[in-house]
Amino acid sequence: MTETIQVIANFSEGRNKEIYNGLKQIAQNGQGYKLIGSLAEPDYNRSGFYLLGEKSGILDTVVEMLEYAISHIDMTKQEGPHPWIGAGDVIAVIPVKNITMEECVEYAEQLGQVIGETLKLPVYLYGEAAKNEERKDLSKIIKGEFEGFPQKIKQPEWQPDYGPNTVHPTAGVTAIGVLRDLISLNININTTDITAAKATASAIREKNSGLKGLKAIALDLDSKAGIQISTTIENYKELPLHVVFERVKEEAASRDIEVINSEIFGIVPADVMIQTASHYLQADHFNSDKQILENYLI
Amino acid sequence: MTETIQVIANFSEGRNKEIYNGLKQIAQNGQGYKLIGSLAEPDYNRSGFYLLGEKSGILDTVVEMLEYAISHIDMTKQEGPHPWIGAGDVIAVIPVKNITMEECVEYAEQLGQVIGETLKLPVYLYGEAAKNEERKDLSKIIKGEFEGFPQKIKQPEWQPDYGPNTVHPTAGVTAIGVLRDLISLNININTTDITAAKATASAIREKNSGLKGLKAIALDLDSKAGIQISTTIENYKELPLHVVFERVKEEAASRDIEVINSEIFGIVPADVMIQTASHYLQADHFNSDKQILENYLI
Repeated sequence: MTETIQVIANFSEGRNKEIYNGLKQIAQNGQGYKLIGSLAEPDYNRSGFYLLGEKSGILDTVVEMLEYAISHIDMTKQEGPHPWIGAGDVIAVIPVKNITMEECVEYAEQLGQVIGETLKLPVYLYGEAAKNEERKDLSKIIKGEFEGFPQKIKQPEWQPDYGPNTVHPTAGVTAIGVLRDLISLNININTTDITAAKATASAIREKNSGLKGLKAIALDLDSKAGIQISTTIENYKELPLHVVFERVKEEAASRDIEVINSEIFGIVPADVMIQTASHYLQADHFNSDKQILENYLI
Repeated sequence: MTETIQVIANFSEGRNKEIYNGLKQIAQNGQGYKLIGSLAEPDYNRSGFYLLGEKSGILDTVVEMLEYAISHIDMTKQEGPHPWIGAGDVIAVIPVKNITMEECVEYAEQLGQVIGETLKLPVYLYGEAAKNEERKDLSKIIKGEFEGFPQKIKQPEWQPDYGPNTVHPTAGVTAIGVLRDLISLNININTTDITAAKATASAIREKNSGLKGLKAIALDLDSKAGIQISTTIENYKELPLHVVFERVKEEAASRDIEVINSEIFGIVPADVMIQTASHYLQADHFNSDKQILENYLI
């Protein structure tokens, strides 16, 4: 039985097509896995690559992509609204099939070690792979961002888990995490008032007594795209998408803002959508394991 | 590549456990397919069996189940709110994988012929398998029900497609159809007024200028279970579940009736739920083919 993981690798470049294509080509050429999706987001100036398959093949590819990112992305010149810490910004490892969370943590450690040693990049482990409570939360690692990291890394509690003790001058640092899931639900709202949008995002996120497990930021995308509340959910079984969506609608409405629509970024398990549909149809006893046809197809 | 079909076989018995178990055992013993679900509904006094796999194995099993039903279910003594025409009431054939609608129609014809000849049951083909426009619509075949069929079958336009020209005295007749899908969404409403419930069902169904492709009846289940609007959707891509659900809520509300919850009966393709979730999350651009993880798992 093949141990299947999903790795979502995010890079701080979503506008330069050449660099995006360079990363994509590396991702396409690896062995033992599939590149199941890749997205460049010019508004965010970030790109994401979704790799699904055996861990060994994905490890080599991620290292190669990071090497490419270091030599092609200069963080001192990048601009974009999304908080970032490095050229190869955040890498999430998610168990999919025949693999435990613990085995994924070992994998993240192995990946961190290789990246730290061969690419000389400081690596922070987060999520289930975090070595202490503080680092479980990615937003605490990101705080201060690329610009603030040279100061932050000097603090004894922010020594990296792997790699050198100094920030790479143009590529910053990298975070590698193990998560149950990683669902990005971006919600477009009809306001141009970034302050109100930020207040909305602030009201819903966990650290401001909002929804447990929710990360949310308000991003002022280019004028055409408007303002977006970008949310991240790491455990949809505990925090379903409809809870997030309805809460955003509610908090926005209290500030006279309406939700225009949403975007589910990237790739999600079918179960995320089934859970949401059951809720809205009030189909309380729907049994996803037994009532979905595909579960019976060999 | 295995030609995979789904057959949903409904029998007019949902209260007698022995008969239900007898049918289930036959369904479990066949070759080349799986019994992926079976449900006895005492309120409806019906049961449904979901068979998924190769058509040849399923054909033999359906014939055997019908034979069992004929010898164990006496329609002259059955009671229940659901309109029915026979012991082996309605059989739906749905293409799943590597098989066309046309091939399913051929299969339904073959099944009808065997049932008609060997079991001496009148068989009506409906849905995509119907031989004329009138018979496409199952509700037109069912009209008059078991009690009225001895009269109905005498009319030249209601000669059966297969089998004898007289109703089986205790087992009635059987309908075999080919459908794109068969989704049963039952909606529980908080009323004891069956007249208002019937008006609600009537307002939403296609034949009363309601929703195209929708069948709906109001059923007064036993006192504990209350009243239910039972809907059937044969093409969810054209008539999504949320459209039906919201329309029922609306029509019920206009009669001061509230929807309590819903039940999705049986087994549905994941896509039904994904479509519903996308709608409610206003995730207009969600691409089910590309954004669902399971589509990439080998």
